[in-house]
Amino acid sequence: MTIKRNVFYVSDRTGITAELLGRTLLSQFQGAAFNKTTLPFIDTVEKARTACIEINQAFSDQGVRPLVFSTLINPNTRNVITACNGLVLDLFEMFIRPLEKELGEESSHVLGLSHGISDHDAYNDRIDAINFTLNHDDGITTANFELADIILIGVSRSGKTPTCLYLAMQYGIRAANYPLTPDDFSDGHLPKLLQPFRKKLYGLSITPDRLHKIRSERKPDSQYASLDNCRAEIRKAESIFHSEAIPYLDTSTKSVEEISITILHAAHLHQAHPAS
Amino acid sequence: MTIKRNVFYVSDRTGITAELLGRTLLSQFQGAAFNKTTLPFIDTVEKARTACIEINQAFSDQGVRPLVFSTLINPNTRNVITACNGLVLDLFEMFIRPLEKELGEESSHVLGLSHGISDHDAYNDRIDAINFTLNHDDGITTANFELADIILIGVSRSGKTPTCLYLAMQYGIRAANYPLTPDDFSDGHLPKLLQPFRKKLYGLSITPDRLHKIRSERKPDSQYASLDNCRAEIRKAESIFHSEAIPYLDTSTKSVEEISITILHAAHLHQAHPAS
Repeated sequence: MTIKRNVFYVSDRTGITAELLGRTLLSQFQGAAFNKTTLPFIDTVEKARTACIEINQAFSDQGVRPLVFSTLINPNTRNVITACNGLVLDLFEMFIRPLEKELGEESSHVLGLSHGISDHDAYNDRIDAINFTLNHDDGITTANFELADIILIGVSRSGKTPTCLYLAMQYGIRAANYPLTPDDFSDGHLPKLLQPFRKKLYGLSITPDRLHKIRSERKPDSQYASLDNCRAEIRKAESIFHSEAIPYLDTSTKSVEEISITILHAAHLHQAHPAS
Repeated sequence: MTIKRNVFYVSDRTGITAELLGRTLLSQFQGAAFNKTTLPFIDTVEKARTACIEINQAFSDQGVRPLVFSTLINPNTRNVITACNGLVLDLFEMFIRPLEKELGEESSHVLGLSHGISDHDAYNDRIDAINFTLNHDDGITTANFELADIILIGVSRSGKTPTCLYLAMQYGIRAANYPLTPDDFSDGHLPKLLQPFRKKLYGLSITPDRLHKIRSERKPDSQYASLDNCRAEIRKAESIFHSEAIPYLDTSTKSVEEISITILHAAHLHQAHPAS
């Protein structure tokens, strides 16, 4: 039996950066299994000592060094963690010195500048974008479409809602969406109410197999979920994308993150307010 | 005038990890200004060469080396970027060797293991959680509350909706929310329909000043937004949290990420499905 190697993500704040860093790196080791623990908000020496005890305990229980991904900024808490019985991979240690040298400036060692709400305007924009997206999900209303940064269109269950929410949450983008239903396909043209917003439209498509699978989980054995119907709806939607020159992408093998970033770049959306 | 130092985030995939890494590090240099560009999906040598030309152009335009945060995995594309005229901070170069040595395994150099949909079950759980959260936002319905992993309660505009969406999107947690309104305060007890779910409840509170500010942006000069009303609602909500022993936190100075992570850990929510 493979031992599950213990992994600790240690952070002054949320631990999101440490987790992402660790996940990206560890995904490269497919022969290993990991038991991951996040220790967020380690912002005092006292908490760092408690974290260290937990890490050392994992070491003595297993006899194998835990991996420790640390994004601690405060030198005092960092020193405590660096002294643990683990392989400590320290983000700041690795990168901050070359940056200090290059920028000719000492780093400030101030906490809470990332994932905080230090920039209130940008933060409020994100919250406003989330509300906008919730109010303009699934064609609830097309009022205020002129305020949208982007409007995603596509057949039901092609990935519009999660993508809109991700764009709003992470980038403060006002993302609306409008479902293309069989009614919209009758004359093969873009629905009239979307026509004034043509430049903001971005299409989501999907393979018939994948759509059939997704819809079947929701409404098994329905006409709505049938492979034939999925195939027909997708064909008609893509035909509109082509005839109206609306850019689109196939979401079948893409995550919400990948779809969002692809659209962000393809549509040259202004990333004024990335998640702080 | 300070020169805005050019910063490039270069990635095989979405660039999310590189951006987070860079943002965390650069937030430590408050004397500097940055002009940030993300170059995602750099997955061929050809694309790497084009990226390199852009980086080198920025260098010759400004006469100052751009900062390049790279999470490229493929050695061929990495080599192209490493040779650019920038200070290249390479995530893999820095961390992968110590990990290979510690784990006794070579890294696989396979792309798309992070932020992809390689784990379909976990991915579907995230999408299901988002749908659950949308269907149980703002007390729309309390049906299926027994399926919720957590139910956030608090006065209007205390941060429930963005927090629920973040928990669902990033962690696949079925997060419902229920607004405490003046009607709920009449007898000072937990609303009846929440009583069966007491163990799943987590309270969000906020300072009167902050709530007044947020509500005033939405409905200026209303009774709803008045400082007196905000103060009274919050006092009654907190009184319920105390008398019913419901854990709660003050969201006033916290970002959605910070609120979410705090709840995740405080409520010992099972992170079965972190964002892949």
